[in-house]
Amino acid sequence: MTATAGLLRPRRDTWLSDRLVPSAAERGAGTQLSTAEFADWFAERGKAHHFSVERIRLADLQGWSFARGSGNLTHRSGRFFSVEGLHAVTGQGPADEWHQPIIKQPEVGILGILAKELDGVLHFLMQAKMEPGNTNLLQLSPTVQATRSNYTKVHQGSDVKYIEYFTSPGRGRVLADVLQSEHGSWFYRKSNRNMLVLTDEDVPLDDDFCWLTLGQLGELLLLDNVVNMDARTVLACLPGPDSRALHSDTELRSWFTNERSRHEVRVELVPLDEVRGWTRDAWAISHEEGRFFRVVALAVQAGNREVSGWTQPLFEPVATGVTAFLTRRFDGVPHVLAQARLEGGFLDTVELGPTVQCTPANYGHLPAADRPLFLDRVLAADPEHIRYEARHSEEGGRFLNAKSRYLFVDADDLGTDVPPGYAWVTPGQLNSLVQHGHYVNVQARTLLSCLNTGAVRF
Amino acid sequence: MTATAGLLRPRRDTWLSDRLVPSAAERGAGTQLSTAEFADWFAERGKAHHFSVERIRLADLQGWSFARGSGNLTHRSGRFFSVEGLHAVTGQGPADEWHQPIIKQPEVGILGILAKELDGVLHFLMQAKMEPGNTNLLQLSPTVQATRSNYTKVHQGSDVKYIEYFTSPGRGRVLADVLQSEHGSWFYRKSNRNMLVLTDEDVPLDDDFCWLTLGQLGELLLLDNVVNMDARTVLACLPGPDSRALHSDTELRSWFTNERSRHEVRVELVPLDEVRGWTRDAWAISHEEGRFFRVVALAVQAGNREVSGWTQPLFEPVATGVTAFLTRRFDGVPHVLAQARLEGGFLDTVELGPTVQCTPANYGHLPAADRPLFLDRVLAADPEHIRYEARHSEEGGRFLNAKSRYLFVDADDLGTDVPPGYAWVTPGQLNSLVQHGHYVNVQARTLLSCLNTGAVRF
Repeated sequence: MTATAGLLRPRRDTWLSDRLVPSAAERGAGTQLSTAEFADWFAERGKAHHFSVERIRLADLQGWSFARGSGNLTHRSGRFFSVEGLHAVTGQGPADEWHQPIIKQPEVGILGILAKELDGVLHFLMQAKMEPGNTNLLQLSPTVQATRSNYTKVHQGSDVKYIEYFTSPGRGRVLADVLQSEHGSWFYRKSNRNMLVLTDEDVPLDDDFCWLTLGQLGELLLLDNVVNMDARTVLACLPGPDSRALHSDTELRSWFTNERSRHEVRVELVPLDEVRGWTRDAWAISHEEGRFFRVVALAVQAGNREVSGWTQPLFEPVATGVTAFLTRRFDGVPHVLAQARLEGGFLDTVELGPTVQCTPANYGHLPAADRPLFLDRVLAADPEHIRYEARHSEEGGRFLNAKSRYLFVDADDLGTDVPPGYAWVTPGQLNSLVQHGHYVNVQARTLLSCLNTGAVRF
Repeated sequence: MTATAGLLRPRRDTWLSDRLVPSAAERGAGTQLSTAEFADWFAERGKAHHFSVERIRLADLQGWSFARGSGNLTHRSGRFFSVEGLHAVTGQGPADEWHQPIIKQPEVGILGILAKELDGVLHFLMQAKMEPGNTNLLQLSPTVQATRSNYTKVHQGSDVKYIEYFTSPGRGRVLADVLQSEHGSWFYRKSNRNMLVLTDEDVPLDDDFCWLTLGQLGELLLLDNVVNMDARTVLACLPGPDSRALHSDTELRSWFTNERSRHEVRVELVPLDEVRGWTRDAWAISHEEGRFFRVVALAVQAGNREVSGWTQPLFEPVATGVTAFLTRRFDGVPHVLAQARLEGGFLDTVELGPTVQCTPANYGHLPAADRPLFLDRVLAADPEHIRYEARHSEEGGRFLNAKSRYLFVDADDLGTDVPPGYAWVTPGQLNSLVQHGHYVNVQARTLLSCLNTGAVRF
């Protein structure tokens, strides 16, 4: 690594923090277009490209097949991803052992947002992008959303636009750059590189791209299914405000270390054929009791993608999820109730997740005592206690109709004493932890993006 | 987690930082004993207990055997650890693929040092402890050095002294608590919980324990083979000084993220029987060319341990290692040259290691171009450029005679422009990263402990 002129610099850079508040305050309109104009532009982009999706039988997948011996669903190139089996033994709770299909995709992709000051206000270059699994197909994506296969040309497709800002050192100023985990319940140890890069170059604006302020992104996060998961996780990586907190950072890390240490989890990949409790028919691999998700197949026709048509497997959850932070102020300072969540696909045991993160339909058969803690409280929350609610989709390149209600729910009656596995943290503490990988899970990062953009304030 | 009275507190606690410099300044004598008296006390402890070690044949291991089918060396209880095979493909450098035996020990142990103010100066409770693989057998250890098996009684042995300070929340004030990796070349994804806990209770002093200041620990780190690896890694977890740096923290993390992302490493456990290039005879599993290490067996007789006698396998390196930071000041601020090191057993690809970390004997057969970067420079360093040198042992519970020369070597002629995979960082930046797991490897932590205790100053 080469240092730039001037030699020494402060370790902590306040340049970015100083510009986030003004950018978040710019609601209604940015330099390029108003939020109302965005809606028209976005609808226009939806019409500009042909993109259609059709369910197909698993046997009609092109280039994909169930490997002899293991039954794993793999691509003939050996790349992209595979669907394999996972066997987890946690020795705790109502589900102390399980089998499931899981996506294995060992390569690290880039999720990158280019930032630039326009008229003195920080703007972010966002992309209108269709993904087969997205609700409404079209959602607002980061500037760059590329698997390693994408940008190293395994697809044999066209170049990834603006990728050079994220792969050429020195092309811009890095504002954030961190490997973040993806869904630990559906991916085996998957992480992506989340980047924000500032440029002062003239950036030619492609038809599918627009510049928005942080405040405008916050407005769009109030809408259902507009800002995609990849954009949300990158926006979560911005720094946040500092304040006093219930627990010092050292106490918080110690609690987290204890949570990581106290679980003795055994997780292993197994052949997909050996996954117990799941069945395969012509159209899907499904859980025997109809719970969790299905592995299904789609044929995609697209006009503006690296390749014009393809087929692929996706995971399709059986029902809508609920993902919520309970919140309250202590001595005037906002806190959210984080949960140390164990997910089978995490690289390292647990990560911090929302207070509630589940698909309620999966727990309908269980007695109240075995239902996730705080779930019933969130489901029954008075509208006046719901500080934020929107439906967002998970990654549309791998998940079909994976929707969740994302909420912030006031819980002023809760005290400082919380159940094992939970801790009150400030948003600023999450902002600090998220600068490092494998601390804050992807669902909590969606909620954090709502805080960072001012979609929710408290 | 429960918050304590007073409700809010600053996120960053300066209490500890304020007390480290005075404790590091106390050299020569602490409240309990002078450093000269320590030498007598330590020699006394060595005589107080019967402890003997004898090499035995692999077949004479009690309770250990090579599992049918895999050939893995396992204990009949299914606990402690096992020796299995590792197959790594990195696609880079002179060693782009290899097989090796590796220790698998999935449980998380505790390495804990109890701290207390004596006469207003911070002291640390250290233990004189024998380990079969230690050079000189007796070394200075943390207050607690316990595998999960130890403190949950798998050994059926006696209690671990002082363990309650580290397992009972609220028993003391946590100063540091982080899961750190161990040797990535010898362990498969092993981490231990490194803890420092402050108490103000009266602590009954056991015969094998003494209180030392940070400055006294620094004096002992100038000696060969006195302070054991477990003590060094815990002492590395103290916070450090802040200063300007060549790279901001964001730039440094971005460089590190890029290092993690650019490696496409495939690592898998394989049966020990399938490890290519290694052979087994009655006494050892060895590399066919006599390089790297041997898996050997010892019988141990001990008077003061959880159990009075046992046999176990250990890894025995074939030669002494060299572990060094090149250092220089930029604009008056000390920096060390860190290397992003790929080790097969790391949980996540690379961690920051010293500039040089290798066993030179393993590279004797290679042309100069394929020898580790900067190794020849360290080996040929003028005495006047050697700011620190001592020999230290790696963990004596798993490694036999695993010794390395640890050095800090001045390199004022090096510029800011360094080869790919290397970066100048300040000690304070390492101190910050080491508060999180899987950033700083165990060898770099030994060198960091020398900085934290004032054993090396610059």
